[in-house]
Amino acid sequence: MPTAIPADSVGLVSPKVEHFAEPLALACGRTLDSYQLIYETYGELNAARSNAVLICHALSGHHHAAGFHDTEDRKPGWWDSCIGPGKAIDTNRFYVVSLNNLGGCNGSTGPSSINPLTGKPYGADFPVVTVEDWVNSQARLADVLGIEQWAAVVGGSLGGMQALQWTMSYPERVRHCVAIASAPKLSAQNIAFNEVARQAILSDPEFHGGHFLEQGVIPKRGLMLARMVGHITYLSDDAMGTKFGRGLKSEKLNYDFNSVEFQVESYLRYQGEEFSSRFDANTYLLMTKALDYFDPAAAHDDDLAGALSCAKADFCVISFTTDWRFSPERSHEIVNALMAARKNVCYLEVDAPQGHDAFLIPIPRYLQAFRGYMNRIVV
Amino acid sequence: MPTAIPADSVGLVSPKVEHFAEPLALACGRTLDSYQLIYETYGELNAARSNAVLICHALSGHHHAAGFHDTEDRKPGWWDSCIGPGKAIDTNRFYVVSLNNLGGCNGSTGPSSINPLTGKPYGADFPVVTVEDWVNSQARLADVLGIEQWAAVVGGSLGGMQALQWTMSYPERVRHCVAIASAPKLSAQNIAFNEVARQAILSDPEFHGGHFLEQGVIPKRGLMLARMVGHITYLSDDAMGTKFGRGLKSEKLNYDFNSVEFQVESYLRYQGEEFSSRFDANTYLLMTKALDYFDPAAAHDDDLAGALSCAKADFCVISFTTDWRFSPERSHEIVNALMAARKNVCYLEVDAPQGHDAFLIPIPRYLQAFRGYMNRIVV
Repeated sequence: MPTAIPADSVGLVSPKVEHFAEPLALACGRTLDSYQLIYETYGELNAARSNAVLICHALSGHHHAAGFHDTEDRKPGWWDSCIGPGKAIDTNRFYVVSLNNLGGCNGSTGPSSINPLTGKPYGADFPVVTVEDWVNSQARLADVLGIEQWAAVVGGSLGGMQALQWTMSYPERVRHCVAIASAPKLSAQNIAFNEVARQAILSDPEFHGGHFLEQGVIPKRGLMLARMVGHITYLSDDAMGTKFGRGLKSEKLNYDFNSVEFQVESYLRYQGEEFSSRFDANTYLLMTKALDYFDPAAAHDDDLAGALSCAKADFCVISFTTDWRFSPERSHEIVNALMAARKNVCYLEVDAPQGHDAFLIPIPRYLQAFRGYMNRIVV
Repeated sequence: MPTAIPADSVGLVSPKVEHFAEPLALACGRTLDSYQLIYETYGELNAARSNAVLICHALSGHHHAAGFHDTEDRKPGWWDSCIGPGKAIDTNRFYVVSLNNLGGCNGSTGPSSINPLTGKPYGADFPVVTVEDWVNSQARLADVLGIEQWAAVVGGSLGGMQALQWTMSYPERVRHCVAIASAPKLSAQNIAFNEVARQAILSDPEFHGGHFLEQGVIPKRGLMLARMVGHITYLSDDAMGTKFGRGLKSEKLNYDFNSVEFQVESYLRYQGEEFSSRFDANTYLLMTKALDYFDPAAAHDDDLAGALSCAKADFCVISFTTDWRFSPERSHEIVNALMAARKNVCYLEVDAPQGHDAFLIPIPRYLQAFRGYMNRIVV
């Protein structure tokens, strides 16, 4: 943590855990008999219960979106740049709820949780969960918190997909949907990258068919490779070029396979290494599957406008010029469908060199527009 | 093979092997005491020895570029669409030489060859080879074949880099250089993809530090992952979308990790599987390193025009609009440097949806322009 908590921080926060005993039917046909969700809240719910904002996380995200858990924390929550007093999601106005999704590995029930039927970690026995399933589980959390209707559901990337799904699954319960750096479904190339990541994990001998925890090991190599591939798609070619170019790690070339020649190799190895020691491989598989399966238009003859026609929310869609994981064209698909469905939609394409990761970065024009939209929400 | 050999095929061909006993000093500082190169030739060398064309192969290519080895062959050589009587590289006019590069796994000396010092396969002991090393070894092959000067040196992708290097290493020995879908050096993103592929191979427990052949195994999983990543970069997002879209493998979703849900997953797994059973993992590592290291401008204060100023060849540069591995902008860098160095250069940007792989595909406008350039070469 910085020496003093910044004035625009939500400060010290603590996660809460909610247990759900009512079985949850999943899209895959299976049922979770019981589960828990871990979440944090920032700001105060107003008397009318009309100022609640739900934050939906992306592939490797979690409930800790803002503030600090401990005075020793080096870094705040993952979206601290956007959540806090006076920030885009202003905690002086909004009551913010941020959870770890079902299947996660940060405190909500997931593959590394104990399966009550066996007394062992679920591992590969944890059911495949979809964006729809997550939204259903989030609705139950809203019920518990006494939130009949969200002022806004907000998310970037996979989080944006959940925000969109909310407007279709629970049209009456969302007044505003903010989908940032997102897409209405994955392209073949998006699925291909996910498949490489999955095969890296599945083919790691330490994966043990998903039951590695029982063996006391983790498929570190597979998870590392998966993250390395992912990272390439999070950054733009330009951003990588600016950040690393062809910069060498040491003064001269080594001409072997074990040395790190280029700085970009060092960066990727570090990112992969760090991630592989903190993230669950089965959760990674689940998250990529949730991405692959998301396709709300599919049930409407591939007519996205048809799928979105039931929505009652207003929409804000934001994309970034150099994002090649979910390019601005993918946001245009959402915006065009919303216009065809006669919904209110604001769209902003932010000129930013950072690629997909831009949604996590405090880019002035992005924050200004995001704050502008959020501030106009009546609570 | 088709039922009859097509009239525009070079027909049945046989590779030849040349042994070199004179040591070859390599860029890495090591020396190969002796080695062999496997090659094929198509067409006839004219009396003036002025009609020879060298074909340089890309990452996974080899010497068998055109024609058939056997009447039972299902497919011709890898660039049969461009080499043959009346084709872009017209074997009625040209004497075409196509070799497998040093470090390869198709008959030239490489990591799977026997190291004369140990009596065992070189494996990881095979030295790292660079594009400059390849060009030097190719020059020795030219000497043996009595070719003082190539009418043209031609290549796509990594092959284009060799063609460019020829004009700098041996300016007097190249009259024309044709560099297709190539780049003057890798970007950070290009290196990053190579690094993922390398880590997939290096971290495979069956890699055994590169000495897997002695163990009687191959790092199949690593090589499969490497090829899957590579394949994504060879195709355009559009091409993948057109070819596979979100098409399912079976009628309904399976919601598990072992089934193949989408056709694009099936395609990638097949490509990876097929490749891993025919290609050497150490060769793959070497090829990616040769790509990473290629940077002729580096020795000239990053001035590519300065690096190319010694060239005496005329140049033809061809790029493809949807190639995102080596985008048209990368070819522009080459063309701009050539113009700054006052060289003769023809440039064609072909509108093609196939991505990087387009250079292997018989696209009419591409073939027409390529043939047009080659036909104007005086022999």
